[in-house]
Amino acid sequence: MSRARPVTVPLSLIRPLVRALRPYVPGEQPGVAGLIKLNTNESPYPPSPKVLAAVRAAVDQRLRLYPNPTAQRLRERLASLHGCTPAHIFVGNGSDECLALAVRAFVEPRRDRRGARTDPRSLVQYFTPSYSLYPVLAATHGAEGNAVPLDRDFGLPDVARLARRGRWRLDAALTLVTTPNAPSGRGYRTSELDVLCRSQRGVTLLDEAYVDFASEHALSLALKHPHVLVARTFSKAYSLCFQRVGYVVGHPQLVAALDTIRESYNVNGLGQVAAAATLGDLSYYRANVRRIIRTRAGLSRDLTRLGFEVLPSQTNFLLVRPPRFPADVWLQRLRDRRILVRWFSSPAVCEYLRLTIGTEADRAKLVRVATHILNDLREI
Amino acid sequence: MSRARPVTVPLSLIRPLVRALRPYVPGEQPGVAGLIKLNTNESPYPPSPKVLAAVRAAVDQRLRLYPNPTAQRLRERLASLHGCTPAHIFVGNGSDECLALAVRAFVEPRRDRRGARTDPRSLVQYFTPSYSLYPVLAATHGAEGNAVPLDRDFGLPDVARLARRGRWRLDAALTLVTTPNAPSGRGYRTSELDVLCRSQRGVTLLDEAYVDFASEHALSLALKHPHVLVARTFSKAYSLCFQRVGYVVGHPQLVAALDTIRESYNVNGLGQVAAAATLGDLSYYRANVRRIIRTRAGLSRDLTRLGFEVLPSQTNFLLVRPPRFPADVWLQRLRDRRILVRWFSSPAVCEYLRLTIGTEADRAKLVRVATHILNDLREI
Repeated sequence: MSRARPVTVPLSLIRPLVRALRPYVPGEQPGVAGLIKLNTNESPYPPSPKVLAAVRAAVDQRLRLYPNPTAQRLRERLASLHGCTPAHIFVGNGSDECLALAVRAFVEPRRDRRGARTDPRSLVQYFTPSYSLYPVLAATHGAEGNAVPLDRDFGLPDVARLARRGRWRLDAALTLVTTPNAPSGRGYRTSELDVLCRSQRGVTLLDEAYVDFASEHALSLALKHPHVLVARTFSKAYSLCFQRVGYVVGHPQLVAALDTIRESYNVNGLGQVAAAATLGDLSYYRANVRRIIRTRAGLSRDLTRLGFEVLPSQTNFLLVRPPRFPADVWLQRLRDRRILVRWFSSPAVCEYLRLTIGTEADRAKLVRVATHILNDLREI
Repeated sequence: MSRARPVTVPLSLIRPLVRALRPYVPGEQPGVAGLIKLNTNESPYPPSPKVLAAVRAAVDQRLRLYPNPTAQRLRERLASLHGCTPAHIFVGNGSDECLALAVRAFVEPRRDRRGARTDPRSLVQYFTPSYSLYPVLAATHGAEGNAVPLDRDFGLPDVARLARRGRWRLDAALTLVTTPNAPSGRGYRTSELDVLCRSQRGVTLLDEAYVDFASEHALSLALKHPHVLVARTFSKAYSLCFQRVGYVVGHPQLVAALDTIRESYNVNGLGQVAAAATLGDLSYYRANVRRIIRTRAGLSRDLTRLGFEVLPSQTNFLLVRPPRFPADVWLQRLRDRRILVRWFSSPAVCEYLRLTIGTEADRAKLVRVATHILNDLREI
């Protein structure tokens, strides 16, 4: 029985900005078993046995204690992996927290009225399509988003030219770049990212959530340019979505700014244990990444053969334009056959489906089901 | 080797507000073993064997998947515990996250100039002393803190009278009340909290982090008044600091506002598993709470006998004024003898130490060490 009563809350208790927000909608996390889950870019492979053992071994009386507030051991290991110092590393409750903190540390809430050219200090700039959380983070903070389309092939546009036309802002307080891009899967060369970073005067954050599946990464830019941050996550290639560990690499002064405004114990203890153990068994994860890349190539061939347009991918997913009928109809028909994939309603990608790369068995099942869907169609 | 170079970050990259912040300093989490840790109000008892077993059993391939984004099962169990619906419950990454989100959902960053009477929409109001995070949260958000002293015995002042004198604001956007109070340990009657809540026009959050050790709780006020929230945590009485789970109970519209601005996966999966399992074994925790309350009574007698002034406590700690020499000297001498306690430099409590209640063995050790310290002093 609910004690909810018809009493309503005076609207004035909630900030107008918050009342007007449309929150980010994450991909479905279904409660039912037996679905093939290719909708939120999780790894199909479990954490390494060593990681599972390390986490199990830590499930003891220590749970009563606060975790290390600065994720010290993990930061030390990450620093040694990346050739920097722990002061260059910020660890967050998933890379989503890192992104949210970057907005709050580097961007002023908007104070000017709409209509006026936005104060660059209140600008969060990003390309479209990219991670659809960015505009939500800007709006939540009361900042202004500047969404600039990628080239039609999802390549990086010439920002200097766009800046001359007033579309792109070289002075934006924060520029967020998903690299490799999601949801297209397209990778970018470090050299072209370097050109982009050099052109920006505000903080430039390269969101490398999927970079483990790419041929290049741009971490060197965070260690070279004092205004550049690189964000990484243990969720995708390292099979740790459940435990929420992401991090940022960059200049110690920017890292210190994030550190100043985070919660005291932002990263849970078992997440710290799992992430540190992960760094002790990287060969296991590298083998998984190679496997995912092989499956990606195979699935790409399979789907091309079935008439899908498959975009090149440097990530653990494929953006594909399905044949015969609209993408959202495919979404539903696949779901009816117990395969979850992702579809975005935004105009740039609404004709596409995003398919997370699963195991070889997932690939075979997906191809079989897609073939059935196409055959059913032929019979109608 | 560090790649840090002497390049400095242009200060303008970081918001002036963030550059000026003094972050909250949590109690020390020492890396060394063998210390008796009575400084951060953790439970001295481990989680229940059933909870440890449930968490260990969950350390499997599921770690690769995102956790439930709304902590659905946990919210259902909490709702049934508290006699409300899941829509009345918000779960956060520790109750610290709940508090931070409340500030961001209900309080406007300050837009007026200093000197003017602050816009009530930008006011975060709290008593001093209480949880020293509150002013940090207000400052981090760019809001104004209104810190109002408790009565000298740490009782709640007559806020209507203070309001007439302009010291307390009945229109503050958010009022935060630590109840029972920390660091004094003093408990408040639900009836007096009800009077306080009824006088406030903004959101009023009762921070019940320590309420399991008290004789009364005020959860009913969150279900009765649409502008009242109650915050709870699994950290203190439920031995789960490591996994960061706290929650808020209140009107679904206020809960929805918090929900709108949180991160998509703010609560890690093993934390959700642990907290849900905790609710299935409450009798274990109630026995621990009774034990802690007994130890609290015993330690209070012991220390009184040694000349300490011991304040009455409804929490799992004691605020004590030590005899003979200043509290910060006691802090150091206890530390030298491997006992960590907490000392706050703020004028209202700088003559006191805050001692977390440990086991009976911790109590005996603390009393023995305190006796030695006093005897050493006599010899000088």
